[in-house]
Amino acid sequence: MSRQIVLALDAMGGDNAPGVVIKGANIARERYPETRFVFFGDETKINPILKSMSKLRDVSEVVHTAESIPGDMKPSQALRQSKRSSMRLAIEYLKEGKANAVVSAGNTGALMALSKIILGMMKGVERPAMAGYLPTERGETVMLDLGANVESDADNLVQFAVLGEVFSRTVLGVVRPSVGILNVGSEDQKGHEEVRIAAAQLRDTGLPIDFYGFVEGSDITLGTVDVVVTDGFSGNIAIKTAEGTAKMYGTYLRRALKSSMFSRLGYVLAKRAFNQLRDKLDPRKYNGAVFLGLDGIVVKSHGGADTFGFANAIGVSVDMVKHGFIDTVRHEFEELSHHLINPVDQNPKSLSAAKAV
Amino acid sequence: MSRQIVLALDAMGGDNAPGVVIKGANIARERYPETRFVFFGDETKINPILKSMSKLRDVSEVVHTAESIPGDMKPSQALRQSKRSSMRLAIEYLKEGKANAVVSAGNTGALMALSKIILGMMKGVERPAMAGYLPTERGETVMLDLGANVESDADNLVQFAVLGEVFSRTVLGVVRPSVGILNVGSEDQKGHEEVRIAAAQLRDTGLPIDFYGFVEGSDITLGTVDVVVTDGFSGNIAIKTAEGTAKMYGTYLRRALKSSMFSRLGYVLAKRAFNQLRDKLDPRKYNGAVFLGLDGIVVKSHGGADTFGFANAIGVSVDMVKHGFIDTVRHEFEELSHHLINPVDQNPKSLSAAKAV
Repeated sequence: MSRQIVLALDAMGGDNAPGVVIKGANIARERYPETRFVFFGDETKINPILKSMSKLRDVSEVVHTAESIPGDMKPSQALRQSKRSSMRLAIEYLKEGKANAVVSAGNTGALMALSKIILGMMKGVERPAMAGYLPTERGETVMLDLGANVESDADNLVQFAVLGEVFSRTVLGVVRPSVGILNVGSEDQKGHEEVRIAAAQLRDTGLPIDFYGFVEGSDITLGTVDVVVTDGFSGNIAIKTAEGTAKMYGTYLRRALKSSMFSRLGYVLAKRAFNQLRDKLDPRKYNGAVFLGLDGIVVKSHGGADTFGFANAIGVSVDMVKHGFIDTVRHEFEELSHHLINPVDQNPKSLSAAKAV
Repeated sequence: MSRQIVLALDAMGGDNAPGVVIKGANIARERYPETRFVFFGDETKINPILKSMSKLRDVSEVVHTAESIPGDMKPSQALRQSKRSSMRLAIEYLKEGKANAVVSAGNTGALMALSKIILGMMKGVERPAMAGYLPTERGETVMLDLGANVESDADNLVQFAVLGEVFSRTVLGVVRPSVGILNVGSEDQKGHEEVRIAAAQLRDTGLPIDFYGFVEGSDITLGTVDVVVTDGFSGNIAIKTAEGTAKMYGTYLRRALKSSMFSRLGYVLAKRAFNQLRDKLDPRKYNGAVFLGLDGIVVKSHGGADTFGFANAIGVSVDMVKHGFIDTVRHEFEELSHHLINPVDQNPKSLSAAKAV
């Protein structure tokens, strides 16, 4: 028997809460029978939905609170107010060791800020990064940071590389993930100082990482590397540009197929093929961005996710718990600190010190 | 009769030079009968191709040089060496007033560096930006900077906004182009300092620009604004990510359509629709990135462009010449300097001073 996994779910986060959260949990319950769910939120809204799902009810618990964090509340405000919010209580539950992970479709900035304050950072990591995975021509690629930080220095990028590599290896099961830094060109002299320093560190300090070098925007969907490392500004723009472009392509394809009787008939005949394409690129399959670097597992579902999408976000959290992500990262960062001690000059070469070179 | 336009073409730039350059010019000659072409490069390679195109030959001239700049040469090296290179001679020809624009499919960094040194910058512009246009769900959008600079401060972004607005208005004919700054969210407090300062300047200094505010990556292909302003790092990543995503979508579509007899039959019936889609999103139509901010018109074709693509890059340069782009930009920047004088405190509020606030 595998050990039980307990998930703290922010039942009030997202556009269609708590319905999507509870129904998403019901799908996840079938996939992961070892999982128990604790719903944080308004029981007068949660219980009526839960009542109709007896199997889910048997493995669930509700922690009532009337407060929740609105989607447009600033993180700073969420930190000061909303002490009894569903999101905060779920994170505190994780901090107290009563759950293995938190999943929320609520306010991203608030989730990030509260998680950082309550759970703290892992040793060796200065800032959390938001990681997600996306479809490529060869399979899937992990990309981070997707927007947890608007600026990232070389140290941050190196830490993101380690976090992303461990995520790809332990959670996605990639044997020896290759890691690339997103840049405007592949040559060593390209880009600004931070990416060049980060690349030099990943290349030269003997970290046990398969560092590929620089990759460009077109490499993301080509699947050139398993892990794409970037600052949160460019990463956020890249992932949203990819989503927007895929959407535009779909819009044009539908318009073109509706343009004549022949094309409509062709569409009917090739319907299965179009469904395959839709399934392959279904954004719901890639729902569930992960805050890496926190001392705890927090998964963010898209606010507009449906039940299928939310179930996938739960799946990401379960995979991370099952594969002992936090322990592995902790171990890797201990290793990292050894690798950053330069054996030649016996000088403890911290990431910050290396940067000043 | 419209006045004659003379184009200086770097015949040796690009993967398939000089063939693509000359054949592309031959297509452009039909579209723009008022244009004359001056080919810079190896006459032993140019003349044999030109010989078979009598109409093109009649409106062309060849300036022989055996030197050309390799695609992988560093810009700094291109500046020091290659005094007699085809690219450099073409730019000098423009500088001497003998041509109206330069088109090259050669080394981007070298083209940029040589143009900046030889032509100089327009008054009021600190750095050139690379602008391109791309398909959206609503039409076309101009985006800049696509990678001329790896870092851009608030002043640069404001200047890019003016350059992009004038380009959209005068060259693409958009009546009152809306301008957005690319960011990780649409709210005022989002993003790093440079984008926030630039947005405040565009909003508050009374510039005659229809400033929309911040846009996100997904807004690029949605066509939310006519001009997307960003730093060269994010812009380069965004445009390449968009290209890569469209390519991936096409790959998956083809794979899906080949997957069964029914889908193959469906493809045959809907072939015209697929061709429409391909034409609509044909990257060759969007070939021709423009270096804005230089005191002269320089258009960069994709190095791998075919004749059709190169002809479109020529078309961009012709449009810019015809619409008096350089004079309009010069005028706009004079206006800009007036707008940046703050009438309240009588303090000439330069962009740099405003930035320090």
